[in-house]
Amino acid sequence: MQSFELLSRKFALHFEQQHFPAEPASLYQPNEYFLKLGGKRIRPVLCLMGNELFDDIKTDAWEVGSAIELFHNFTLIHDDIMDKAPLRRGMETIHAKYGENVALLAGDVMLVKAYQQLEKVQLEFQHPILHLFNKTAAEVCEGQQWDMDFEKKETVKLDDYLRMIELKTSVLLAASLKMGAILGGAGERNQNLLYEFGKKLGIAFQVQDDYLDAFGDPQKFGKQVGGDILANKKTFLLIHAFETVNDPQKDELNELLAANAPDKVEKILKIFRDCKVDEWALELKNKYLDEAFSHLEDIAVVSKRKQPLKELGQFLVKREH
Amino acid sequence: MQSFELLSRKFALHFEQQHFPAEPASLYQPNEYFLKLGGKRIRPVLCLMGNELFDDIKTDAWEVGSAIELFHNFTLIHDDIMDKAPLRRGMETIHAKYGENVALLAGDVMLVKAYQQLEKVQLEFQHPILHLFNKTAAEVCEGQQWDMDFEKKETVKLDDYLRMIELKTSVLLAASLKMGAILGGAGERNQNLLYEFGKKLGIAFQVQDDYLDAFGDPQKFGKQVGGDILANKKTFLLIHAFETVNDPQKDELNELLAANAPDKVEKILKIFRDCKVDEWALELKNKYLDEAFSHLEDIAVVSKRKQPLKELGQFLVKREH
Repeated sequence: MQSFELLSRKFALHFEQQHFPAEPASLYQPNEYFLKLGGKRIRPVLCLMGNELFDDIKTDAWEVGSAIELFHNFTLIHDDIMDKAPLRRGMETIHAKYGENVALLAGDVMLVKAYQQLEKVQLEFQHPILHLFNKTAAEVCEGQQWDMDFEKKETVKLDDYLRMIELKTSVLLAASLKMGAILGGAGERNQNLLYEFGKKLGIAFQVQDDYLDAFGDPQKFGKQVGGDILANKKTFLLIHAFETVNDPQKDELNELLAANAPDKVEKILKIFRDCKVDEWALELKNKYLDEAFSHLEDIAVVSKRKQPLKELGQFLVKREH
Repeated sequence: MQSFELLSRKFALHFEQQHFPAEPASLYQPNEYFLKLGGKRIRPVLCLMGNELFDDIKTDAWEVGSAIELFHNFTLIHDDIMDKAPLRRGMETIHAKYGENVALLAGDVMLVKAYQQLEKVQLEFQHPILHLFNKTAAEVCEGQQWDMDFEKKETVKLDDYLRMIELKTSVLLAASLKMGAILGGAGERNQNLLYEFGKKLGIAFQVQDDYLDAFGDPQKFGKQVGGDILANKKTFLLIHAFETVNDPQKDELNELLAANAPDKVEKILKIFRDCKVDEWALELKNKYLDEAFSHLEDIAVVSKRKQPLKELGQFLVKREH
């Protein structure tokens, strides 16, 4: 049983290579640049851990892990274009550095490269892996579309927001674990429990992310608190606030969002606190976390093998409150 | 043995369906709209014909044909963004109608949908089909990148231009035929000969396209003659002209390209004729056509089965000169 940290270091070494041919350099150099920006490689490591929950790690899990990481980077490159984001991990995004056309095509070929990785999977597992990979890829695109749609809407229902987060973020985490489980020879029931564990953990993580942006300790959180509020971003907090405020609070909230007063963050945080949005968010996070761990518990494998996933879950989503 | 026309009508019927889920409509409706714009569906029909050259058409060939057509449409959607093209087949492009972000994501999910089609292929053929599909997809992206690179260059060598056309256009035609051959149970030698036939035919077709834009009969050609010349597009003709003109002609050509005089087309056509670029282009086309048919000839299958492909080749690239 290997910890997330150990597998993360191993995968980083495995992935540290040239992924694309030399030519056309104008297409492939941007992709090599982007892959070198790093990241925690959470998804491929989940694939390795999903495999190791059931059996020793197979060669295929490294290949599928690379496919997943390439896919994830494809989504980042194209999302950055859509969001007009200038920076990613403190460095220039591809479209900012090389232009939008190059970023568009570089993303495309990154996705194709992900599928090229899947060719390497043993025939026995090729169909289930391709099927799950495709399903997940389509869902991630759908999640991104819902996210863009929601930006233009005045109000978003909590259930719709949850479904968007599930598609945009959670299903890829869940699928990474499940692909590992498939390669580890898990039965269908165990595969699906692990998938649900990943999905619920992903939602808990997003709730926590939204919570910390508003209520986190800036020292520990590592970025300015209130960024989402300043950007009028629809978060779990804002959506729930609109569902619970009274009419005068609603008017005030709308006014605060429409203007950009210097005390915007402070005043919105006060409304959040008055409506107990902070407590609600922690409860919601814990609800998903409990569900996640209960799925993990149900997997028919000796408890010892689950230890690294338990630790990872607890590390990603710290229990507070 | 079925003719291109018959198979084209059959494939059009097969492909005339809803391809995507209803929701999110903001993502999937644009794709349904785009697929309804039609087109000759040449590539999937090549897949069917490649299959029928060796055996009765298998169910898989229809699925792979759909995958190829979806892939082709993905490239059109993204190319239209890159080219800022307002129209496609006389109708608004996706980015013009729905915005660039939607077009970007709609193209992405169209590509994923193409891969979802490949899941349906019998296990026996899944690996070779996926491998060829991936290789071709990467090559088409590379071809598009070379094309964008060449637009910015002052001069392009004929060999480099040929390679670009091969990647951007020919390999998908060739791969469509070869995938059909694989599904038809062809041996490797026959598969590769058919691939080469498609590749050479694709180049001959592009040479003819460039030729007709300059020297075609506007009545028959269906579009304004000289469009490429007006747009300073690097074509087989312009590239060869630069390789053969004398110094005064070269200066004149450069001046004509730099300005946009009313007699630009006429004067450039005169230089082309003076340097016999027109004759050269017809010879080049015939050279590739001869090579294509010689590969077809070499395929170890009774001549009768080759008839529809011969007719298609002659229809696509009419022998002139």
